[in-house]
This record gives sequence, structure tokens and C-alpha cells, in this order.
Amino acid sequence: MEQTKNDEKKITSRAVDYSQWYLDVIEAAQLAENSPVKGCMIIKPCGYALWEKTQKILDEKFKATGVENAYFPMLIPERLLKREESHIEGFAPEVAVVTHAGGKKLEEPLILRPTSETIMYEVFSKWIRSHRDLPLLINQWANVIRWEMRTRLFLRTTEFLWQEGHTVHSTEEEAQNRVLMMLNIYKDFAENYMAIPVIPGRKSESEKFAGAKDTYTIEAMMQDGKALQFSTSHNLGQNFAKAFDVNFLDESGTKQYGWQTSWGLSTRVIGGLIMTHSDDKGLVLPPKIAPTQVVIVPIVPKEWDKQLVMEESQTVFSNLRLVGISSKLDDRNIRPGEKYYEWEKKGIPLRIEIGPKDLASNTVVIVRRDTGEKKTVSLPDLNEAVVSTLELIQNNLFEQANNRLVENTISVDSWEDFIKAIESGKFVRAHYSGSADVEEEIKKETGATVRCIPFDQVEESGVCIKSGKPSNGRVIFAKSY
Amino acid sequence: MEQTKNDEKKITSRAVDYSQWYLDVIEAAQLAENSPVKGCMIIKPCGYALWEKTQKILDEKFKATGVENAYFPMLIPERLLKREESHIEGFAPEVAVVTHAGGKKLEEPLILRPTSETIMYEVFSKWIRSHRDLPLLINQWANVIRWEMRTRLFLRTTEFLWQEGHTVHSTEEEAQNRVLMMLNIYKDFAENYMAIPVIPGRKSESEKFAGAKDTYTIEAMMQDGKALQFSTSHNLGQNFAKAFDVNFLDESGTKQYGWQTSWGLSTRVIGGLIMTHSDDKGLVLPPKIAPTQVVIVPIVPKEWDKQLVMEESQTVFSNLRLVGISSKLDDRNIRPGEKYYEWEKKGIPLRIEIGPKDLASNTVVIVRRDTGEKKTVSLPDLNEAVVSTLELIQNNLFEQANNRLVENTISVDSWEDFIKAIESGKFVRAHYSGSADVEEEIKKETGATVRCIPFDQVEESGVCIKSGKPSNGRVIFAKSY
Repeated sequence: MEQTKNDEKKITSRAVDYSQWYLDVIEAAQLAENSPVKGCMIIKPCGYALWEKTQKILDEKFKATGVENAYFPMLIPERLLKREESHIEGFAPEVAVVTHAGGKKLEEPLILRPTSETIMYEVFSKWIRSHRDLPLLINQWANVIRWEMRTRLFLRTTEFLWQEGHTVHSTEEEAQNRVLMMLNIYKDFAENYMAIPVIPGRKSESEKFAGAKDTYTIEAMMQDGKALQFSTSHNLGQNFAKAFDVNFLDESGTKQYGWQTSWGLSTRVIGGLIMTHSDDKGLVLPPKIAPTQVVIVPIVPKEWDKQLVMEESQTVFSNLRLVGISSKLDDRNIRPGEKYYEWEKKGIPLRIEIGPKDLASNTVVIVRRDTGEKKTVSLPDLNEAVVSTLELIQNNLFEQANNRLVENTISVDSWEDFIKAIESGKFVRAHYSGSADVEEEIKKETGATVRCIPFDQVEESGVCIKSGKPSNGRVIFAKSY
Repeated sequence: MEQTKNDEKKITSRAVDYSQWYLDVIEAAQLAENSPVKGCMIIKPCGYALWEKTQKILDEKFKATGVENAYFPMLIPERLLKREESHIEGFAPEVAVVTHAGGKKLEEPLILRPTSETIMYEVFSKWIRSHRDLPLLINQWANVIRWEMRTRLFLRTTEFLWQEGHTVHSTEEEAQNRVLMMLNIYKDFAENYMAIPVIPGRKSESEKFAGAKDTYTIEAMMQDGKALQFSTSHNLGQNFAKAFDVNFLDESGTKQYGWQTSWGLSTRVIGGLIMTHSDDKGLVLPPKIAPTQVVIVPIVPKEWDKQLVMEESQTVFSNLRLVGISSKLDDRNIRPGEKYYEWEKKGIPLRIEIGPKDLASNTVVIVRRDTGEKKTVSLPDLNEAVVSTLELIQNNLFEQANNRLVENTISVDSWEDFIKAIESGKFVRAHYSGSADVEEEIKKETGATVRCIPFDQVEESGVCIKSGKPSNGRVIFAKSY
């Protein structure tokens, strides 16, 4: 659908207007569009297929650790949201409220879930009696609503899709292990599937989740040098357990509060995927996340070649399926050039061109989306060549992004250098006093925030880049989406 | 989790209180429970696993017909909902309204989607330009909200999960084919996976979807003789196309309105599944929809037998996986009887008991959930025996339900017999004038409605059971959920 409209529009180059480039790539690849409701997006089939693949990969990994899926209501009574003090403070400005239903005014307003800690933990408190009921490991795939002023397709929308995991443990140690286990699953997904290198770490006080004891994050660098918070995993301590009375009898029969975690990943990662790999021709997808990994384009300059070429294309399609490669055979009656252009925009990692001349020499041509490199491959070797080339593409995209991250992360020790580095789109490793006031000042002056206190932080004496107070190590500052 | 609580409660028998039995089965099998928000349910892991399996089966079938998944916003501007007249008439009493968000009163109230025709078709009208953009075949898996007064777990809840398919075609014939194609997919799913026999047919005027030209349905019979509308498929004609300007240029360049369909299946089918097969011991699941098909229970009367029994149990588990059977090895340190009781309540189709005596003779015992039948099977034949017994269970459950449907569907020609038949929980084939007034009268007096005008209706002259007016054929009346 819609080819007619999209074929006409050119993608703005990154150098000219990065923001417009992002929107153009999304439009050209038919991933999503704005809806009649302000701030809410429509995820189109090509975009939704990326979310489905994300769900499939993560869901398996979650379940392998014992997590079970469930579904909780999207409507939350206002009184529940208010139960944990810092939680409601954090979310109050963003909630949407149902006041009328079934033709009547409701006695108590209902909130559309911005996240589900409150309704889930109210229920968990009834489910859990004894240490034998623990750990409780629940995940839900759902839509959530957060009323955002400035929205941007995938990155920040009023409604978005996500998964939210919620667990209860009998010890603090087990909860903390779970927090890091899930962060590692996210890191594995980001790096080994989406080919997005990330920096794992802990959030500063002012950036942590409303109600959490500690928030852990993985941070990615986009092509403009801005950070994208890929996903987070929270150690909730006993904050919510105390507010919602999530308690259990331990082995000695003593009442204890549970230790809780929550962790989530949303459709915003698709925004991160787009901004990490795409180029001025359009979307670029790593093979391991691409719903379609290969497109086969038959080339039929003369009608009498048609049968042979189509038969061979069909054979190639079937052979690829046998080795688990998802491909598309584009047999539409339009010029090959038009097809190349379309599949380039849509980010299909590899193209196979099959024409009568190639077949005469028992070969086909394969073309990489990431580098544009063309290669002639003999037909009997094709499956193997496709598998290994897809691996090369996956690795190349990761390396490219990783080089960018490494080259654009610098250590800085003076305020002047800090400002310059932030302005030129760097991730900056700098000393920091740890105080929220100072972070706020830095944000006001430069737009940068503490992205994380990285796990690889080295103990090192220094002075805070802004306040001059003593510091034990560097944190990572950047502007962010 | 929760074993402690649920083990204590006994399931009410169907003969004593059918409604309570239904709720008890759900509680005992830990499928769902009521939430702190009136009318909304929490789908617990065992219940959600059934929905996941439903999604997986249907999603593949949809995609095989060219349907693509997408996601549209859950918030719908009030003005859009009002565009198609009979649609808003049907849904107005059930909508929930967001009036405030982000701390402010909204300029235009937003409706929580009760279904997505309006927002989708507003967008489709922009997507579609030419006949080359057709057919457009979109499906979405989502939550919807309909404000219901009397709710019942799975069967009728304020929020429920479903899929809604929406298609646009260039001809009326193609649209009608799609309507019946999807109804057939639902029928296949009901009968061949959920083992629920259904009667396909067309809805009467008063029971059809608000805004549809025709609604098609498949109707199932529950154990109390009431009907459950399993799912519906609507031919929307050009009603919405005209209201939302969904038009296209045909091959001659003339503007035409699209021909549309929509079709949906919701979490209520899980209610139908429970009520079709379960018994006084709890849930009974057909193997093809059961997330876990087999439970393996090692029996270790003496500690010294433990290693052998556990090793053999593990081998059985691995062997079953090789032939695609999903099983659970219950190695908890509790009495086997407790395990049997628990898995019976949870509806696992087949149990394998492995003890030292059996192993001495190289056999195990298998026990069917549907009939309770026990059988000794030699170990080398186990895989084959499990596969064939699961098939027997699947077929037996379907036959049992089908016999019930056939035996309790009767033709009736007098009003007295009609009343008696409806009171005794039958599906009644009776002549009917086709007028909505008469249907309303019948409903008032007996509680029965026209479930469908069945596809197998025979042309036959008769007089309407209520009004005495002439009729050309019998329709199916029943009380319904």
C-alpha cells in the first residue's frame, strides 16, 4: 500500500537536518505515522513487525528465567496511584483520567496506567502469603499512557507499547540479582540483535524511577551523539512493599516485607534502532532483527527469459527458507530499479538479483544494504554465502556503531571543555559531585544530564566539573532523547 | 504461587450451582480473578498462557491469508466515533471517556476504544488512493473497553483483550469472501483446537454489529445449554466507507467507495473453553490448546529409588519434547496425591506416573484427564502412546461436546413447546417472522434471542412461532451468555 505516495518524496540527508531525516526515514520505510489523536502514533505493518520480532526474542529470554506472562487492568483507581508518595509525585503530571463511563460520572476517577506497579502490587499483596510463594516473577505486554507535551514518533509518544516485568523476592540479594539479570538480557538484545552497543550503569538520584531505590540503565549513542535510554531495570527495595503491604511469612514464621524489582522496554527502542544504523538512503536493519532478511529480485529484460528466471528465483526462495532465512520474492511487474530503491528504503539487509545472464553462468549477484557492496556468487554456494554475509552485516553494523560510541566518548576535566564537548555531541566522562542541584545546573546551562554512573567506573580522585567538590569517579554526561 | 490458598477450597458441582461452579473452576485453575477496578479482570499466568496459545494459532492463520498486524491508538476523538450513525448509537452507552490529562481539561473528550472501526477508517481513507492499494488487510491485537453493568470473568468484562481485523476491498464479492474466510478460520480454531463445535450463521437485524450490513457468527453451546457467541465477522458494506470517505480510483480512474469487513475474537472464548469441557474436578483442556499437555509425576516411596526414578522421569521429559509434546516434570517434594489433585484442577490433559515398581517392569502408567482412564504403557512405546492418547482426548472432547449440541438442539412448532424447550436449556430451531419487534417480545417472555440464521437452514414454509406470520425457514433460538 501507499507506494504511490512515498515513492515521490526524497529523504532529507542527515547533514542537512537530522530531525527531519529521522522522520523521513520512518515515512519512507512505512514504519509509523501520527494519528488523529495528538501525541499518539499509528504503528504501521512494517514498524509493527519490528515490535513483534522484539517481543518474540525477549519473551523467550524472559521465560527461560522463570518469568510468566499475565495481564492486569489498564484502569487504575486514583487512590492506588497515590499510595507510594514519590511514585505519584513522579507520575501525577503525566496521567490521563477517565471521569465518565457508561453515561455517568464515576464515583472515583480512574487513571490510565502510566506503569503498573500500583495495581499489580495491590494484588500481589493478596497472592503472597509465605516464602513458598516467592519468588513471584510476572511480566506483561501492554499499552501505557503518559501525557507528553513534546512527542516524537517511537521515541516519545502519549501511548506506547512495552513490556513491564514485576518481581517479588524474599531477600534483598536475590532482588538485586534479578535487577541485573534483566538488565543483562536487555544488553544482550540491544547488542546482539539490534547491533546497538550500550553503556550499562546506574542512574543518578534525579534520573531514577519514581519510587525506586536504584534504577539501572543501558544507554546508547545515536548518530547525532545524543543518548537514548534503551531500557531500565529498577531495584524497588521495600518502598512499594511497605506502601502496598506486600509481605510474607519467612521460614521462621516471621512477617517480612518483600524485595521488589521492575523492568521495562518499550517501542522507543525501534526509534533507537532507526537512529543507530540508518543512512541517507533510508532504513538499515541488522539481519537478526529484520522481519525480512533477504529480498529476491528477478530481472527479466526479455519476456522469453521469464520462466527460467522465475523458476530459479522460486528455488532460491525455498532454499533460503530451509536454512531459516526469511526472504521475500518480489515478482511485481515493475522495473528492477524501482524495486531496489524501495527495498533500500525499507532496510532489507541483503538483495539477491537473478537475471538470465547470471543464470547462464550459474551465478547470481548479492548486494549488501549496509555497504552497497556487490558480489557475484555461484548458485550452489548461495545459501552459505547469504548466511555468512548476513553475519558480516550484523557484525559490521555493530562495529560501526561501537566505533562511533568509542570515538565520541571523551574524558574532560574543565568546564570549558565540558561545554564544548557537549555542544559537539559527545558522551562526556567527567567528575561530578553527586548532588541533584548541581546536575540541574549543568542541565540548564548545557542541556546535558547524567546518563549513568557506568559499571566500568574507575575509582579516581577528582573534582566535580561544575561545583569543584570532591568526587571519587567519573560519570557519563550527554544530551538525550 | 498461591497453592496454599487454593488447595483448601472445594469446587461446587455443576448440578448444585452452575454459575458458582464456573467461578470455582477458574479460581482452582488459577486462570483469572476480579481486580480492584470494578468489572476489570486480572488474567493470571495460567489463563494468559491460554490466550497466548490462542494468539499464536490464529495469528499464523491470519498471516497465511495476507493479513498484516499493526497498532492504532486506544484513544479515539469523540467526533470520530460519532461519524457513523448506527455505530455511535450502538456504542454510546458503553464508552468510557477521558476528560482530563496532563493536569488539564481536554478540549475534546477522548473515548477509550470499544472497537477501532472509526479511528482506523479515518486513517485508511488517507492510505488508500488507488485500486492498487487494495485489498488492505490489517489486524490488531489490543485491549478494548466497554462499560458493562453485569460482568463475569472472561465472558463479559469492562476491559478485554481481543484481535480485530479490518479489511478494505475493491469489490463487494471480494469483501464477502473475506468475511466468510475469516469466519471459517474461527470455526476451524473453535472446532479443531478448542474442540468446541459451533453453528455458523448470520445474525438477525437486532443482533448484528452496530454499523454492519451483515454480521456472521459461530455459536457454541455451553454445558447448561446456553449459547456463547464465539466470534463474529462483519460485512460492513460501504456504510463506514461513505462515513469516513474510504475511496479509491478504480482501473478506469473512477472514484469508488471501498467494501469493508471487520472480524474479532476475544478473551471470552476462554470462558467458552472452560464451560464446554470442564467437570466437577476442575478445568479440562483439549491437548491442542493446552499450554502444558502432559505432567510427569515421579513416585518415590523410598529414598533409595529416587535417583533411578528421577533420571527416568527426566528422560521421558526430554523424549516428549523431541516429538513436540510440551510437558512439565513435577519434582516437588510433596505427596503424589497432592500433585494429581492439583494438575487435575488445572486441566492438564495427560498424567504420566513413574515409580520404581513400574520401572522394574520397564513400564509407566498414563492417566487421561477427560475420562480418568489409566493405562500401563511399556517405556519404549511411551512417546507413541502419548501422541495417540492426546489425539484420542482431543477427539473425545469434541465428540462429547458435539453430542451435547446435537442432542439438545430441537425443532419446535408451538409456542408452548418453545417456552418449555428454552426453559430446559435447548437450542431451538423454530420459524420466525424476521421482525425485530417479534424478537424483542420473545426475548422478554423467554429470555431467548435469535442466535443465528444457520447456514444449513432448509427452505421450508411455516409460520412464526410467536407472531404466526409466514416464514421460509427455521432460525436458532437460545438463551445466551
